[in-house]
Amino acid sequence: MSDILSKISCPSEISALSPQEMNLLASELRENIIQNVSINGGHLASNLGVVELTIAMLSVFSPPDDQIVFDVGHQCYSYKILTGRFNQFCTLRQKDGMAGFPKREESEYDCFGTGHSSTSISAALGLLRAKKILKQEGRVIAVIGDGALSGGMVYEALNDTGHLGENLIVVINDNQMSIDQNVGAISKHLDRLRFSSGYLTVKNRTEIILKHIPLIGSLIARVLIFIKDSIRLIIHRRRTVFFEGLGFRYYGPIDGHNLPLLIKKFQSLKRITEPVIIHVCTQKGKGYEFAEQKAAQYHSVAPFDIETGFDASTGNSFTETFGRTMLSLAQKSNNLIAVCAGMMSSIGLEPFKNSFPERFVDVGIAEEHAVTMAAGMAVNGLVPVVALYSTFLQRSYDQILHDVCLQNLHVIFAIDRAGIVGPDGPTHQGLYDISMLMAMPNMNILAPRDYRELEFMLEYAVLNMTGPVAIRYPRASECLLMGNEYLSELKMQYIIRGNDVAILSVGAMADESTKAAKLLEEMGISCELVDVRVIRPLDENELISICKNKKLVITCEDAVKHCGFSAQVALLLDSKGLSVPVISVGTQDHPVPAAKRAELFISEEMNADSIVRIVIKELKGAT
Amino acid sequence: MSDILSKISCPSEISALSPQEMNLLASELRENIIQNVSINGGHLASNLGVVELTIAMLSVFSPPDDQIVFDVGHQCYSYKILTGRFNQFCTLRQKDGMAGFPKREESEYDCFGTGHSSTSISAALGLLRAKKILKQEGRVIAVIGDGALSGGMVYEALNDTGHLGENLIVVINDNQMSIDQNVGAISKHLDRLRFSSGYLTVKNRTEIILKHIPLIGSLIARVLIFIKDSIRLIIHRRRTVFFEGLGFRYYGPIDGHNLPLLIKKFQSLKRITEPVIIHVCTQKGKGYEFAEQKAAQYHSVAPFDIETGFDASTGNSFTETFGRTMLSLAQKSNNLIAVCAGMMSSIGLEPFKNSFPERFVDVGIAEEHAVTMAAGMAVNGLVPVVALYSTFLQRSYDQILHDVCLQNLHVIFAIDRAGIVGPDGPTHQGLYDISMLMAMPNMNILAPRDYRELEFMLEYAVLNMTGPVAIRYPRASECLLMGNEYLSELKMQYIIRGNDVAILSVGAMADESTKAAKLLEEMGISCELVDVRVIRPLDENELISICKNKKLVITCEDAVKHCGFSAQVALLLDSKGLSVPVISVGTQDHPVPAAKRAELFISEEMNADSIVRIVIKELKGAT
Repeated sequence: MSDILSKISCPSEISALSPQEMNLLASELRENIIQNVSINGGHLASNLGVVELTIAMLSVFSPPDDQIVFDVGHQCYSYKILTGRFNQFCTLRQKDGMAGFPKREESEYDCFGTGHSSTSISAALGLLRAKKILKQEGRVIAVIGDGALSGGMVYEALNDTGHLGENLIVVINDNQMSIDQNVGAISKHLDRLRFSSGYLTVKNRTEIILKHIPLIGSLIARVLIFIKDSIRLIIHRRRTVFFEGLGFRYYGPIDGHNLPLLIKKFQSLKRITEPVIIHVCTQKGKGYEFAEQKAAQYHSVAPFDIETGFDASTGNSFTETFGRTMLSLAQKSNNLIAVCAGMMSSIGLEPFKNSFPERFVDVGIAEEHAVTMAAGMAVNGLVPVVALYSTFLQRSYDQILHDVCLQNLHVIFAIDRAGIVGPDGPTHQGLYDISMLMAMPNMNILAPRDYRELEFMLEYAVLNMTGPVAIRYPRASECLLMGNEYLSELKMQYIIRGNDVAILSVGAMADESTKAAKLLEEMGISCELVDVRVIRPLDENELISICKNKKLVITCEDAVKHCGFSAQVALLLDSKGLSVPVISVGTQDHPVPAAKRAELFISEEMNADSIVRIVIKELKGAT
Repeated sequence: MSDILSKISCPSEISALSPQEMNLLASELRENIIQNVSINGGHLASNLGVVELTIAMLSVFSPPDDQIVFDVGHQCYSYKILTGRFNQFCTLRQKDGMAGFPKREESEYDCFGTGHSSTSISAALGLLRAKKILKQEGRVIAVIGDGALSGGMVYEALNDTGHLGENLIVVINDNQMSIDQNVGAISKHLDRLRFSSGYLTVKNRTEIILKHIPLIGSLIARVLIFIKDSIRLIIHRRRTVFFEGLGFRYYGPIDGHNLPLLIKKFQSLKRITEPVIIHVCTQKGKGYEFAEQKAAQYHSVAPFDIETGFDASTGNSFTETFGRTMLSLAQKSNNLIAVCAGMMSSIGLEPFKNSFPERFVDVGIAEEHAVTMAAGMAVNGLVPVVALYSTFLQRSYDQILHDVCLQNLHVIFAIDRAGIVGPDGPTHQGLYDISMLMAMPNMNILAPRDYRELEFMLEYAVLNMTGPVAIRYPRASECLLMGNEYLSELKMQYIIRGNDVAILSVGAMADESTKAAKLLEEMGISCELVDVRVIRPLDENELISICKNKKLVITCEDAVKHCGFSAQVALLLDSKGLSVPVISVGTQDHPVPAAKRAELFISEEMNADSIVRIVIKELKGAT
């Protein structure tokens, strides 16, 4: 399929290509990326946007001595393909395949693993400081999208870099988007930079025209143009001062799809010894029309047909249920407000925003601010629902603990993508929220097993509860096997009564727990199956009454097995002197790799068969 | 003692005072603050710096309708005194006394509790958004020190505010310090603003002079001055663009000790409808000569003599031991590097910085950046030791998990002030680090009981270990009762052998655990006392062998009792089917209030007597 691409065995061969060959290489990369992502799913729009940028960087810089850190990392496909992983690319995001994000174990060219936004400049500065102290060769480059600029870490890093005058290169990949449309003052600032540079381009054109005008006679015109240009330059200069206030030299904006220009600019940057920001404008989805038109929809896609494009309509899901419930709750509660951090549509809040724009706040990628801002809202009587993926909730640990929990404020956390997420791998698994929130005073944690339960819990949290409430739900379809009887209050639900083994099932573990219970019943082992529903506070009396005469207690949670609900149950039972063994089912104590959710349920020993095996082994051991 | 101060019963009375009375009020406040802090300890320098600022705000704005959020909150004493807490001020930081930080439960005037840096603008924006939506009256003001500007949340909040054009008032209290000297590009930027405004003052003076020069004849002089002034204005303008790039109008800098000027400025700000930043310059420690001279030393003080000043020399401590060990390790390991976040001296790194300035990095108040930057350093072969208080470590949860633990990088965390810290109260207790780090893959957690152990563990971590290592030690003297036998490897240490009760003591719990064991021995209850030393990974075999034939296991940790080491031990024993009761000693599941450490050990049931009581009760219950 590829003529040039397949012949590139290492990145140093790129600089030897002619301009025409480089343009061909860009086309081949795009074709290859579209092809593979259409089969395996993955991040499409962001990767199509940085093809030329990646080629240009690799033709000027020399990894692994020069180190490139990709912020978030969802734009690394071209880089991976060009750094010796062309043949592995077909295994993208598959079990034991090529990771969708930079990964140190995978290649020496991946100097720093990323996955979450706004970390690249910090990591790059650390790499650079080490190079200086240990006298290692090479430059360090951070490539960061404009969307990631709303994350506070970026400023912490810029502040530290500018101060010291280290010669870090920061490439702002400005595609005018994060996953959704950008928000915030910084985004507006970049708009202005692009706009004022438009003036500069006009100026250059004017100069070209002037070359063809005889000198004498055009003096007045020249003076006028000089004055106008000076004003424009001053305007542009002033606007770049934002970055220069942070101690950086600013270059740009330049066209991120113009390979010769990019290469020339990077070559000149190599000679500079102070920190520089180069502002590159790219188009998300470039080269694939569907993705160019709907970049947000094509940010991260499931497998799709190249000819007809990706169908984003998801039908029923926890995410959609959340969005729908928020909409109906907004009509019942005038104080309800929705807060999200740069992911309006993926978190399900687009319908809410369209109906209640004045009660919707997207703060951009800024989870810390989102939480503390919500705490402020709660103080004055609003009921904020902060919707975040579990993996991103981690970024606001201190704010949840201090600003919400210590003050016991009524802020509701809608935690999407809790548990195993699958192909996005270790940086996106939502495994830590239970252990994190379990330690925090005043926190309530709920886990619905199906859409109707999510509806009920969200409504209950908004209308009937006080203090902090977290509701966690997975990137998976609802569980159906526990049946359709529902409680109208918030307490544990007995699904099956039994004598030998208590199975305490948390949220999304309902189907595997139910299957296991039925398999065990068939084997003559009597199970008491309980849907826990409320993870915190523990219903101590009920738990004791469930567990006290059992031979074995199995806790099932879609989270790290050693630090969540299980450990709390064990400590509770132990502190009451109950001598029943407790076995925890959940993910093992390691970074959980990329694979399909169902595959990981098997490898992490969380599926029904594993549960059955554990029960049988334990009961045998006990006798 | 006070003439005016004692007569102020609510803040609305302040605006009625004459300028002379206001100045007197300022003096009386200073006297009162110095007096009380000299008795109870507390934050001195920061509070002396904002006396006039607080009076000015209270004379123009009307809390509680107008809401003032104090960033960090360690500068709220004048505010508390003037908002009805004059009589309570003598109970500052005492058990059941007035908190040293803003606290919602304490007064309706404390609209938002703070304690950690850089949260105020987020909280204020939340308050303001709620006011707009719910149509409540009043302005919202955030007061933030220049030191807190290095924290990334500030930019997340400014970005969100500027974008929407909410009429938030942000007061930058610029004292050119955080706790230590400020670092970073922002700090330099503020310097430049002060500097260029110096030009403006000169300009104003020139204009006054010009009024006395006859118009004719001075035309050339006037034109020259006009041109120079214009240039100066442009320079100043350009420099303010940094904040204006974020969508704020910038005013200042103005003298923060000039009451009439402050009042006039705040009055004019009341009429503005867009977000504004007002840059106020104050002097830390103002009015108390010792504190003016050594503001860092007088940031937070223990009780002291007003005449002779505060003696900061601490003698031996965990902090000093850490600093000393770092110094000697730096000579053994060329790759060692120290990283801190705005607290060089309080964390013990001043000697290290003086001897190895090129291997010391203070990133300012920017814990997230500190951790990821350290991860970058580790990638390229440095061995970074990141020194943070436990309570501030929380701010980098995602960075520790993702950038260090998932990548299994050799970054060492020196966690000072772990456990109960005392009078600083709920926002400063270091109770969550164990539960937080316990969940993270690849993490090692160590807890020394005394200075020698800290030395050993730090050296071992730097020279002999790989992957992430956390060493937690308290704000307390070392424990001495476990004796002076030491192991030369990292494993649990048996202190006393016994049969009935296993006492698993973690780090700083050594003395209370030992006392309890001895008291129990005297009562005929045979105890096996173990210094755990390594909290993670659990030494499963050893733990099982210790616990398996005991009647009772007691785990003692200076951290939340329900989510740390205890729960891990309980789950381990349960999963092995061991039927021994496990009782956890640690802080209860609530915000732990301000009081002396010893007082809290009693109220949280962590002292020797409590442990004895628990053991006796459990053993009785079992028989």
